[in-house]
Amino acid sequence: MNQSTRELIVERADELFYQQGFEHTSFAHIAKEVNISRGNFYHHFKSKDQILDAVIDLRLANTQSMLDEWELEGETPDARIRCFIQILIRNMAKITLYGCPVGTLTTELAKLNHVALGRANEVFTLFRGWLTQQFEAQGCGDQSDELAMHLLARSQGIATLASAFQDESFIHDEVKTLNQWLEQQLSNS
Amino acid sequence: MNQSTRELIVERADELFYQQGFEHTSFAHIAKEVNISRGNFYHHFKSKDQILDAVIDLRLANTQSMLDEWELEGETPDARIRCFIQILIRNMAKITLYGCPVGTLTTELAKLNHVALGRANEVFTLFRGWLTQQFEAQGCGDQSDELAMHLLARSQGIATLASAFQDESFIHDEVKTLNQWLEQQLSNS
Repeated sequence: MNQSTRELIVERADELFYQQGFEHTSFAHIAKEVNISRGNFYHHFKSKDQILDAVIDLRLANTQSMLDEWELEGETPDARIRCFIQILIRNMAKITLYGCPVGTLTTELAKLNHVALGRANEVFTLFRGWLTQQFEAQGCGDQSDELAMHLLARSQGIATLASAFQDESFIHDEVKTLNQWLEQQLSNS
Repeated sequence: MNQSTRELIVERADELFYQQGFEHTSFAHIAKEVNISRGNFYHHFKSKDQILDAVIDLRLANTQSMLDEWELEGETPDARIRCFIQILIRNMAKITLYGCPVGTLTTELAKLNHVALGRANEVFTLFRGWLTQQFEAQGCGDQSDELAMHLLARSQGIATLASAFQDESFIHDEVKTLNQWLEQQLSNS
């Protein structure tokens, strides 16, 4: 029971940080949304920074599960990398409204000079390591990390522009270009 | 004299919004940094949103001046587009700390569901229109707007990842890749 209240708080905070930003979401706001007493809330978390740590843990766990799924889903490294690209389409509506949850959090924490920036960046590092493995398995050798970072940057840029122009069709166009880029890279290797 | 106090406020707010984020920077904080009396401050601005409008005006004017400079500086459209890519190198230290001022502001305002999002996005629109013109002048025809948006997205993604990993060398690598991409596009057209 206690565990599930804690989980409820973290899940709601995760959404609020994503949709409104970390700074804009107050400790009181989260308590109010979860609709529990202040005493019960304090029992679980003493500060917004503690909630942020738990949100980052949740995001790391969710990212790892997703990567594990793709590992089973995609029969080749190539197909697995396409699973990554495909999240731009799957999360298109949210990305157009709020950008990418990973990139917008690290951007905000960098500006706040927040101590949790390094931990928030571990989500990127998970994707980076996994993508690097896929490129290696596809025979890209020494270039694999560079290709992984390039792909992460491409997907971040697409999210930022789609959100700025509130334009879903831009995501469609760029995903097509990204898949063409992938094909080229893999045929070169 | 009045004019210059106003300018001072707007310039300092511009920096603070960029370095710390819009939400994190309070009205009182700006007044304190500019070091003028509250009365004098209120004489110029009644709210943070009014300051934001003035900051966007300043950024639009500065962007236009920069584009005008590049227009004179670059002898060919190709060279002018390279001036755009080169700002990633010129502003590398700041980008690594705070990301891109244009993209991080639109991202934040989108999350805040802020009425000024459309105006903030006019800075992107200025770049987009100017880059489209350069691609057209270089013979890219119907593809010109798509290429302009693609280039904007690439530069945004580079800024986000450089800031997340606090990695200047990533900017160098990606700028090289971006210049190669440009060469390819222009040789195709």
